[in-house]
Formats: sequence, C-alpha cells, structure tokens
Amino acid sequence: MTGSELPGVLIASGPWAPDDWAAPFRREQPHRPLMIWPDVPDRNDVRYLLAWKPPEEAFEGLPNLEVIFSLGAGVDHIVGVPNLPDVPIVRLVSGDLAQRMNEWVTLQVLLHHRQHLDYARQQASSLWREIPQAAAPEVRVGIMGYGELGRAAASVLRPLGFNLAAWSRSPKEDADIPTFSGEAGLSSFLARTDILVVLLPLTNATRGILNRSLFERLARNGPLGGGVVINGGRGGLQVEADLLAALDNGTLAGASLDVFEPEPLPTTSRLWLHPKVVITPHVAATSEADIQAEWIFRTIRNYEAGRPLPNLVDVARQY
Amino acid sequence: MTGSELPGVLIASGPWAPDDWAAPFRREQPHRPLMIWPDVPDRNDVRYLLAWKPPEEAFEGLPNLEVIFSLGAGVDHIVGVPNLPDVPIVRLVSGDLAQRMNEWVTLQVLLHHRQHLDYARQQASSLWREIPQAAAPEVRVGIMGYGELGRAAASVLRPLGFNLAAWSRSPKEDADIPTFSGEAGLSSFLARTDILVVLLPLTNATRGILNRSLFERLARNGPLGGGVVINGGRGGLQVEADLLAALDNGTLAGASLDVFEPEPLPTTSRLWLHPKVVITPHVAATSEADIQAEWIFRTIRNYEAGRPLPNLVDVARQY
Repeated sequence: MTGSELPGVLIASGPWAPDDWAAPFRREQPHRPLMIWPDVPDRNDVRYLLAWKPPEEAFEGLPNLEVIFSLGAGVDHIVGVPNLPDVPIVRLVSGDLAQRMNEWVTLQVLLHHRQHLDYARQQASSLWREIPQAAAPEVRVGIMGYGELGRAAASVLRPLGFNLAAWSRSPKEDADIPTFSGEAGLSSFLARTDILVVLLPLTNATRGILNRSLFERLARNGPLGGGVVINGGRGGLQVEADLLAALDNGTLAGASLDVFEPEPLPTTSRLWLHPKVVITPHVAATSEADIQAEWIFRTIRNYEAGRPLPNLVDVARQY
Repeated sequence: MTGSELPGVLIASGPWAPDDWAAPFRREQPHRPLMIWPDVPDRNDVRYLLAWKPPEEAFEGLPNLEVIFSLGAGVDHIVGVPNLPDVPIVRLVSGDLAQRMNEWVTLQVLLHHRQHLDYARQQASSLWREIPQAAAPEVRVGIMGYGELGRAAASVLRPLGFNLAAWSRSPKEDADIPTFSGEAGLSSFLARTDILVVLLPLTNATRGILNRSLFERLARNGPLGGGVVINGGRGGLQVEADLLAALDNGTLAGASLDVFEPEPLPTTSRLWLHPKVVITPHVAATSEADIQAEWIFRTIRNYEAGRPLPNLVDVARQY
C-alpha cells in the first residue's frame, strides 16, 4: 500500500465503459485508489480486480489481490486464463441483469409461441389470415440451466401459463417446478420440451451441447411441430452447422439467438437471413455499468466488514 | 315447451363454428333442445340465446327467452340491436380468453420495449449493432380499461418489472396499481404513460377515443421518444387517420393493432406496411369454442340451480 487508507481497485474491462464502472467508486469513496488497466502505477495497490474479457497480463504480478469480480454473469472469459490467481471469483448477477434477461426470454418465447414471424410475413403481404394457435398451458417450456437466471425466467413465464420444467447439471432440491438433472435426466427433459430456453454457463462440459443429438431429442409432437431453441447463454454452447441443418430439415421450428461464436456474427453466416431465426446482437441482458458497479461497491464494503462473498465461482466446474 | 325436460338453447354465432359451440351441450346434456340459427322449429323452446354478431331477427319472437350469452368479452355486437329483449346479458370472459389476451399484450409490450422492429430490420441487413435499451422499471405502461382483461394483463406485466397504472371509466377502489378514472383523470394518466395498452369495450363513450388529442397527451419523454399504442379492444376505438398521422409525425413511436373497423383491414390501408406498426388479424384472444361452451354450460346449470348470473352487462353503459 502506498499510503492510501483503503484497498485499491483495478478495472480491466477491455473497451467496455471503464469510466462508467469507475464513477460510483469515485463518487462514494473518493479516497479509494482506483486504477484502469493498463494504467497501474503500483501493482501492490491492487486488492480487487474487476474484470471483463481481461488481457492475461492484467492478472499478473498482483501480490495483494484478494478478490476477482467478473463484470457479468458468465465467467468463461476468466476461468480459462493461464496462471489464474488463486483468489475467490465473484459472479455479478444483479437484479437488473436478471430482469433484462427475463424481458428477452419472455419476448422470444412469446414470439415463437404466437407465431410472430409468420404473422409478420403475412403483414408484409397485407394478408389477413388467422393461424391456429395453442394456448400457453399446452406449450412445454424447458429451462436449461437453473441458477439465478433460470429461476428468474421461470418466475415470469409461470404467470403466462406455460407448462414449465428445468434441467441442471446437479439436482435442485428446492425448485418449484419439475426438474431434471445430469446426463441421466437430459433425454427425459428434452422429450417433454417444446421450447428450450438455454441459460447455461459455457464450460468444458457444456461447449457444443446444443447439437444435432440434442435437437433430435426435443419434442416433435408440440403445437409448433418441432422444437424451438432460445439461447441467451453463450455462443459456444451451440453448433451452428447442426442448428442450421435442424432448422432446414424441420427438426427445429425456430430459434432465437443472442450469442454466437465468434461475435459479431459474421455477415456470411446463413443464420442472419434464415426465415425461422431471430437474431439479437448480444443485447439480451446488457448490464448498465453504473447499476452493476453499485452492487460491487456494496459487496466490497460488506467484505471489508467481514461478511462472506456472494455468488462465488467454482473454478473446477468453471461456473 | 314442447315436452322436453330441459329449457332449450339457441346458438346464433354467424359463421363462427356453431358445431363447436353445440358439441359440449350435445355431449353433456343430450336431452336439452339445441337449435342452431336459422333452424328454430319452435321459438317457444328458446330459453337461452348464445349470440355472436347475431342477425337482428334472431332476437325476435322469443317469448320464453331468459338469458343472452355473448360468445366473447365484447358485447358491442349485441347492445346496439333494436328491440333488444329485456333479459340479462352475460359476457363471456373465460380464463382461457384472458390468458390468451395476456400472451398477446405481453408480446406486444415487449416487442416495442425491446425495439424488436428495429432489430429485425438490422437482422435483414446482417447488421450487428446494439441499440440503447431502457430497463422495464423505467417504462410506464398504462392499461386503459381495468376490468377482468386489464387486471389479468397487470398480473403478467408486473413480474416483468414495468411501472404500471390503469385508467377506467369509474373509480376502482380495490386496484393494486395506481388508477385514474373518468375524464378528469385521463390527462394525468396519459401524461405518465409511455406504452398504452387498450382493453376498453366499444361503447358510445369510447368510440374514437384513440384520436389525435389522446395521442398528443401521452408522455413524450420516455425511453422510446414517443408513445406506443397497443389496441386489443375494438377497432372502433381508434381513428385510423389520426393514428397514421401521429406515427408519421413522431407523436407515436409505435403501435400494435389486433382490431380494425372494418375487418378484415382493407389491403389499401397504409397501416399494413407502416414501419412502426405490428398488425395481427383479430387473433389476440381467439376463444376456443369448446372451452368457452363448457363455461356457458356450467353457468346455465348454476343458474337453473338458483345461483346468480356472473359477468352481467349494464345495457345503459353498453358493457
């Protein structure tokens, strides 16, 4: 420490609004040393690292580092870093982020359920024609990944009347909807699912999980005549070629994708113009830095008052 | 009565699935006389009239008529009939109908809130670009008409985090969101509303209520820079020329319309291809005749057991 009264914070957020992240700290604790990568006068001052897709060098030579905060719900951009410091990593899942994801998930589920793409095409042809429509209780929505975001999604889809279930890697004892878990439960979960909402973390175990085999196990007897895949997680979960093939051959009736690998989605991708696909440019739950920083600020204050850190990442599981 | 044990039912549903309406009666009470307009062997047998846009003659010469059931939530197709028999009129608002309207309202609110029309245009150009996005709590949704459908809509929009209020003709004492009422409360309600959800009945008092004066009183300082109008009520509520002018001059940022006057919406209407408008062909809450008929069947059984009729229409108020 170089004479400051409070432990210092280093923000390494790549191009993502470092000043927005810094503002709440400057406002609330002007005496706390605040550094923005790569401007780090004294690495000994860094007690907390706030990271979003940080360069590997940002993790090096920080002898007093105590906590890493991921500036988003996903930590795949951190856990793969070589020589990751052995300190707690905190995932940032604010109420604001979960609520924005809820909006996106609900919109995409309803877009497909209510056959909006077909009605939009009819509108473009000035065509007045009713399309047979199931009611929500007849539609089985399956939520894949039942952490904070998955539970939040259930809380907004339930009042709409959808028939819900969830799948997660490990069993959830306290779930308020039917849950399936592990490899053993996956096929049963998929077989009862018409619309699949994917909110999984990207790990070695989930990379490429949205592939031909999975698509073919989704229900085929639902009101839309094929599965619908809604991916708000990470692009690395989906195998793009398998997704396109399943859309083309009718295994899938539709897809909504907010995430891709790589991003931006190349203009050459056939996904852009596929008539069954809705694409958003990784905006499902854009965190407002200002609100998120307040959460980190409170968490640091609680930590310094001796309280435990929330949302800790299990590095071995990668989420 | 001509010897039957049970009072008879006459279905006058125009071209709308009379057999679907009849099936539950035939199944559950095969001994009840059931007539389908215009096939009425003995008008003395008609105790109950199930009506949807009925011809005026269907109301005439029914000396034993006791109850009219409207085969939908709206009764504007009944209350204007000359020489309307002076018997109770029951509106049909089943849980199924309200739930389907909830789906449509939520989809349309989220479509505009999440700027889907702009993202869809970007997708059609293979354009990856984030658009600034407010969160639901920053968006003031105003529900106009706070009966069963309006309350149901609030119950699904609330968990999404929207800032809700409602307006109704008469004060609602038991509302769980801020409410405004009457002509005196209308301007205040509109001034705090970014997205207007219209679920009003069509009456002499509401015909043409969605006009230039109303559009200009909506909030202009919201995240979308203009009001959004979502009409799931009746086409006669909106003045199409005023709506188009308000969309063109920026007073309105968008509209979703399920209802028109006349229907089908003529192919010559400029609404069809307006870039800010979502059109659906009066399908927001298409009642499934089978489910609705079950509700009527139960209601008749309760009525014959001496219980009061639900959802009674006030003919003077026209709803």
